[in-house]
Amino acid sequence: MNGVMNGVVKKKKDLVVQGCFVHSVGNVSMLVQEEMVMGIQDGRIVFFDNKDKLNALLKSFEMNKENFISLERNQFIVPGFIDSHAHAPQYTFMGSGGDLPLLPWLQKYTFPAETRIDTDKTFSRDVYEKCVRAFIGKVNMDINSPENYIETREESVKATHRFLEDILSRKNPLLTPCITPRFAVSCSNELMVDLAKIAKEKSLPIQTHISENRDEVKMIASMFPEAKNYTDVYDRAGLLNDTTILAHGVYLTDEELQVIAQRGSGISHCPNSNFSLKSGILDVRKVWEAGVKIGLGTDFAGGHSPTMLDAIRRGVTAANVLYFSQQPDHQATVDPITYKDIFKLATLGSAQVLGISDVVGNFEVGKQFDALLIDPDVKHSSLDVFSTDTREDIIQKFLFLGDDRNILKVFVNGSQVV
Amino acid sequence: MNGVMNGVVKKKKDLVVQGCFVHSVGNVSMLVQEEMVMGIQDGRIVFFDNKDKLNALLKSFEMNKENFISLERNQFIVPGFIDSHAHAPQYTFMGSGGDLPLLPWLQKYTFPAETRIDTDKTFSRDVYEKCVRAFIGKVNMDINSPENYIETREESVKATHRFLEDILSRKNPLLTPCITPRFAVSCSNELMVDLAKIAKEKSLPIQTHISENRDEVKMIASMFPEAKNYTDVYDRAGLLNDTTILAHGVYLTDEELQVIAQRGSGISHCPNSNFSLKSGILDVRKVWEAGVKIGLGTDFAGGHSPTMLDAIRRGVTAANVLYFSQQPDHQATVDPITYKDIFKLATLGSAQVLGISDVVGNFEVGKQFDALLIDPDVKHSSLDVFSTDTREDIIQKFLFLGDDRNILKVFVNGSQVV
Ligand SMILES: [Zn+2]
Ligand SMILES: [Zn+2]
Repeated sequence: MNGVMNGVVKKKKDLVVQGCFVHSVGNVSMLVQEEMVMGIQDGRIVFFDNKDKLNALLKSFEMNKENFISLERNQFIVPGFIDSHAHAPQYTFMGSGGDLPLLPWLQKYTFPAETRIDTDKTFSRDVYEKCVRAFIGKVNMDINSPENYIETREESVKATHRFLEDILSRKNPLLTPCITPRFAVSCSNELMVDLAKIAKEKSLPIQTHISENRDEVKMIASMFPEAKNYTDVYDRAGLLNDTTILAHGVYLTDEELQVIAQRGSGISHCPNSNFSLKSGILDVRKVWEAGVKIGLGTDFAGGHSPTMLDAIRRGVTAANVLYFSQQPDHQATVDPITYKDIFKLATLGSAQVLGISDVVGNFEVGKQFDALLIDPDVKHSSLDVFSTDTREDIIQKFLFLGDDRNILKVFVNGSQVV
Repeated sequence: MNGVMNGVVKKKKDLVVQGCFVHSVGNVSMLVQEEMVMGIQDGRIVFFDNKDKLNALLKSFEMNKENFISLERNQFIVPGFIDSHAHAPQYTFMGSGGDLPLLPWLQKYTFPAETRIDTDKTFSRDVYEKCVRAFIGKVNMDINSPENYIETREESVKATHRFLEDILSRKNPLLTPCITPRFAVSCSNELMVDLAKIAKEKSLPIQTHISENRDEVKMIASMFPEAKNYTDVYDRAGLLNDTTILAHGVYLTDEELQVIAQRGSGISHCPNSNFSLKSGILDVRKVWEAGVKIGLGTDFAGGHSPTMLDAIRRGVTAANVLYFSQQPDHQATVDPITYKDIFKLATLGSAQVLGISDVVGNFEVGKQFDALLIDPDVKHSSLDVFSTDTREDIIQKFLFLGDDRNILKVFVNGSQVV
């Protein structure tokens, strides 16, 4: 997207949106702003203010109301949800294909998917509900892997170079290539060092898994006796920097979180996966308090749902379980994090973890307008809104009970794509 | 329903269904039976056998194929899900109305709802996805309650008699009245004794809440110092018998479960509510091993979703959390219960708890045909079924990702109602 569709730059109309906006700003996990107007030029938010300022703002930005959306009573706008960790079909295919060439893969998966996005409204709504941009990597693994998956260190490095050249030659801003060692269990230290160098040379983000379950943590300890802990394995290989995305992190110690904070790396919290694979529960508050960036991920298909709404619900469940599990005498001194905090993880948090919070994640002036128009009143949906419901009730109903049917419009970089 | 719609008995056509049936039988939580045929006469299952027996069976039952449904490849039939514990709007209204007369309540809630079921296909699918029959009670509470809710013991007993007379006079088998002390925190022992007597005299089921969270258990201990434990409070009042449905039961001890098993009472497991209200997690295996009947419930609106599909998903999450929480060293000797077990709770288990497993809950010959026809391939649904998916994959995808859009038809007592 980002102004480019199938390689063609489209000229964008100005857009003005009036109504209720819900997003995370600074330390406020969920800011609800009623009766606002937003001006969007060339995909970017140029003004965002109270609606009584509209005429003055239009004049000052030389805009008109030709392309004007006025939300209905119960409708509201949220930032597009950002999945900070998923295994897209392509990704999986890449992993299992070892050094398979890119083009057959693109032809088999990416092209049909792009075509379907253009022609099938429901499919594209689903896709955009899930996420608006893809970080993809060629998964590397040279040890402890099934025979048909494994590759040698040299093969793995070569295939990575081929993958990167192919992706970068496409110049599609929808696709961000990244370096993707599967996890330390299936990568030799030498391969990880190689990959860290490639990431540094080409300024590419790194994504991997860390400390997902207890057995894995034990295995890492025996595989890397020279390392202080799991985090240290990646740190020694040079894989931890401010573009590194670490999925899970359920069993990270305070000491490890301190190192991750120092390196500027982020964590992707994947509660559905952690429940489904019986891994455990990440303490989001502990991560926050350590000053580590944290976003939300589906980890589909480790998690059983590809939707971020499901991820949000599971995130709330995880927080509540943590609360009642850690407080056997019910002497709670700290309340659990709330659905508002999880909403932040799904929007601004994920943007921060992916290093794209300068352009997306909330509705600050200057950012791209990536947003979902939510209609809680849409016919045949799972929601029933009553006249007595407050705005907060309605937002909760959408987050807890809504689905793709309630997503009336999807905007990416200021353009309505659904 | 049960053959009666709006008071008029409808003559039913014979029905023959051919395809895959998924249900719980005996100790098998999920039995998948492919290529079966089922004959239904007057709402009841008269035969259920391999499809090659069809002609012989039709002849023997003097049936024809006039009303014949042959399922498509990926479609399958499950028993209608049974919500063993919910607070329907009417129920809530009854509770808050104290001794409000029945008729205004019926007019305000039940009649419009019945009309809407007849005219709005989506609404009725939602309702039937939720449950096919309602147990309703006038909620009793004479202590520790907000002023506008509370009633004296005498008022409460009188209102209960009025409620029962009104419901029973309607002779609508859709509505089963029951005795509903809210929970021991808000009922005096004297009121509970009165209610137990009414239940016994009129042979009515009893439903209440038990041991939902730690604070409640502590409060009961201080309110009823003469009782051995929470269960003993109800037992002394005479409220525990083989028609009693106890919601939650999270903190029941082995000793309490033994008493509940001896009385033949059942437990309604409400995982969404237990997560949402930060109550805790019920150990389903422990309940099973104590020989106590157990079903699944939404506890809507304590739980945030009214659908049994959500309850099933939460039930699986609860089982997994229990597994990784109780096994800090990962020395698991017992696997967690599975989605198949939770499916059983949602069908046969709930039927057993509600005392209706002689007529519904699975597809045994002689029972009513209460069923959902699931279509995983329906357009614009949340499911994507691939040609490589096994039947088990498809069933899992429906249970974990499906929604009302995948419920193509709903049968109650042999009649297609949606
Ligand atoms: Zn993953
Ligand atoms: Zn309840």
